[in-house]
Amino acid sequence: MKKPNIVILGAGYGGLMVATRLQKQLGVNEAEIFLVNKNDYHYETTWLHEASAGTLHHDKVRYDVASVIDKNKVTFIQDTVQKISTADKKVVLEGQELSYDYLVVALGAEPETFGIKGLHEYAFMISNVNSARQLREHIEYQFATYNNEAEKDDTRLRIVVGGAGFTGIEFLGELANRVPDLCKEYDIDYHKVKIICVEAAPTALPGFDPELVDYAVSHLERKGVEFKIGTAIKECTPDGFIVAKGENDVEEIKAKTVVWAAGVRGNSIVEESGFEAMRGRVKVEKTLSAPGHNDVFIIGDCALMINEEINRPYPPTAQISMQQGELCANNLVTLVRGKGNLQEFKFDDKGTVCSLGHDDGVGVVFGKKITGSKAAFMKKVVDNRALFMIGGPGLVLKKGKFNFF
Amino acid sequence: MKKPNIVILGAGYGGLMVATRLQKQLGVNEAEIFLVNKNDYHYETTWLHEASAGTLHHDKVRYDVASVIDKNKVTFIQDTVQKISTADKKVVLEGQELSYDYLVVALGAEPETFGIKGLHEYAFMISNVNSARQLREHIEYQFATYNNEAEKDDTRLRIVVGGAGFTGIEFLGELANRVPDLCKEYDIDYHKVKIICVEAAPTALPGFDPELVDYAVSHLERKGVEFKIGTAIKECTPDGFIVAKGENDVEEIKAKTVVWAAGVRGNSIVEESGFEAMRGRVKVEKTLSAPGHNDVFIIGDCALMINEEINRPYPPTAQISMQQGELCANNLVTLVRGKGNLQEFKFDDKGTVCSLGHDDGVGVVFGKKITGSKAAFMKKVVDNRALFMIGGPGLVLKKGKFNFF
Repeated sequence: MKKPNIVILGAGYGGLMVATRLQKQLGVNEAEIFLVNKNDYHYETTWLHEASAGTLHHDKVRYDVASVIDKNKVTFIQDTVQKISTADKKVVLEGQELSYDYLVVALGAEPETFGIKGLHEYAFMISNVNSARQLREHIEYQFATYNNEAEKDDTRLRIVVGGAGFTGIEFLGELANRVPDLCKEYDIDYHKVKIICVEAAPTALPGFDPELVDYAVSHLERKGVEFKIGTAIKECTPDGFIVAKGENDVEEIKAKTVVWAAGVRGNSIVEESGFEAMRGRVKVEKTLSAPGHNDVFIIGDCALMINEEINRPYPPTAQISMQQGELCANNLVTLVRGKGNLQEFKFDDKGTVCSLGHDDGVGVVFGKKITGSKAAFMKKVVDNRALFMIGGPGLVLKKGKFNFF
Repeated sequence: MKKPNIVILGAGYGGLMVATRLQKQLGVNEAEIFLVNKNDYHYETTWLHEASAGTLHHDKVRYDVASVIDKNKVTFIQDTVQKISTADKKVVLEGQELSYDYLVVALGAEPETFGIKGLHEYAFMISNVNSARQLREHIEYQFATYNNEAEKDDTRLRIVVGGAGFTGIEFLGELANRVPDLCKEYDIDYHKVKIICVEAAPTALPGFDPELVDYAVSHLERKGVEFKIGTAIKECTPDGFIVAKGENDVEEIKAKTVVWAAGVRGNSIVEESGFEAMRGRVKVEKTLSAPGHNDVFIIGDCALMINEEINRPYPPTAQISMQQGELCANNLVTLVRGKGNLQEFKFDDKGTVCSLGHDDGVGVVFGKKITGSKAAFMKKVVDNRALFMIGGPGLVLKKGKFNFF
């Protein structure tokens, strides 16, 4: 009897979780497992704000996929997915085609620009290792250039961040810590630097406890960040953002560095492959399978699940991706072995911590509000836990965060 | 009796030499000494190729002027010189005016572009700390951007250097050492990187012994540098250089990084202040005074002196600047004290070493040709000697190069 082919697309939190759990649970003879990823490394999406601000080297936020894969059980293919064809059960990669019996779509997110003009062209994004280090170097180049120009251009020292959600706030926290070092490095007066955050919603960190939001905003303001809340971005230009508070109060914010940190959507390959999706996210069954496709599982940022308590979708996070990956692996084992029932996913919310630099933060953990160094500590625990879940203690030792104090 | 005012313009090799020698030789009551410099630091012009390539941090190539000045004897003024008025014996700075009894012009060099179109606008220069670190960051930004673009632009990985003279060759040596690190940092295939050097003269390192030139060129070629010798730069554009071998053989070299390292001239303030000069260099008397101005001394890159053995000007180097500074200080002491005769300058050529990265080089020292690690060693001795001459053993310990092996 032919072994079934399990193809996992993406080596992010979800995909790697499936691969590492399957290699533990299935014997060599039970299935042929393929893991496909564009890069030969996994990166910690939740640490990219640090690599982007330059407070953590990008090599610290990634590790080789090979280092957590059991080669006897999982075949790693470095290639880019072009299309999924459910009709003939295959995946088209740039370099080859793969047939599957069971497919796991864990392709992650893309920036969502909500149709705002100019964002794709002129704004930097915090999406992956490539974009993070480009942003870091762009900022550094602006500072390096400032003193070498006869006519000083203060917009080189201005960084505007679109979005005061999770990514925006965490990036601002790192940036506020990085700027004094940049000023020292390039002989620049700290007071000439401006960091501005523009958020369309009526509050920063929408969804967070208002007390924690206040803490985060005043912490960042104390470090020099200027907030424009309830202000929409109308357009991104080569010179900065055009924003509006209300319909008439239009303002141009000139800055050489413009960062878009305000939204993600699922991978567009999901839509292009014919799955019914909202912004690249497929409303999956409770077993995590795609509607009408018992052999296709969709997890992580491409999956949409409703939090029935508040009747709104769960936000896409590493935490939920990894829990989905674990359950998805269990269900694949059940299918491969042909006995037992598929499990249904239930999100176990362990809490959320938003960092404000390496030494501060806000969050809710096990239902309890925390701020300050306690939150910063918990953030590192959360970060290390993600490493542990996928790569065990060895990976934690290699890539973990131990600067606790 | 009023103490005479001695004003020294510039804290480069020449100016600092005058200041440090005067503070040793003159008593507090003999003269009022002012040292004017744009920055509060001195930088090692001869090490800038390293800061530009990113092989040595720019803070390593500079030190505070205050750290080598005796504040009881020398008043340091951080300001920019705008004009020298010999008619009323004063210097106009941006922030104030200074009257002098004796003036030392040690304002250093500027890039000479020989009227080549576009160089000032589009080429990077290796002129000072500001330009060096901007160039370093520009190159790094190009490498950082490469992998983040859907359509790969290989010209981001191309660096064209105009000039195979001393600065050009030394910069190429550092660059060739730096590129493998950049490739590793940004996941770039080393073979995609191109370093091209364009030189109008019929040889690299004109004036050097042909055997040493061959050594240098083949060393750099082995490290991947491509030479276009006997090729003139016609124009610099935002896309690269337009070059020509002969009149008709025109070629466009596309590169996102274009460096002009082919020529220097004296400071234009010298000409603008009415001194008769050739490319900003004044043909000084043997006492180093400006023709017709016994109270004005011009030293370093703004001074022109003929090497009578070959009837050509001495090239502007740190070595000659420092020797001139020493003699200039002696002559000022003589003038202040009003007894004795002024000394005449005679260049004591101790040799020249051109580095090819930190571990190789070519040179002539005390009349003997050297190459390889011996030359690299001597280069560091030369670099440390410059520190010693101005700041004594303390400065050598603080800023010296000790990576001899």
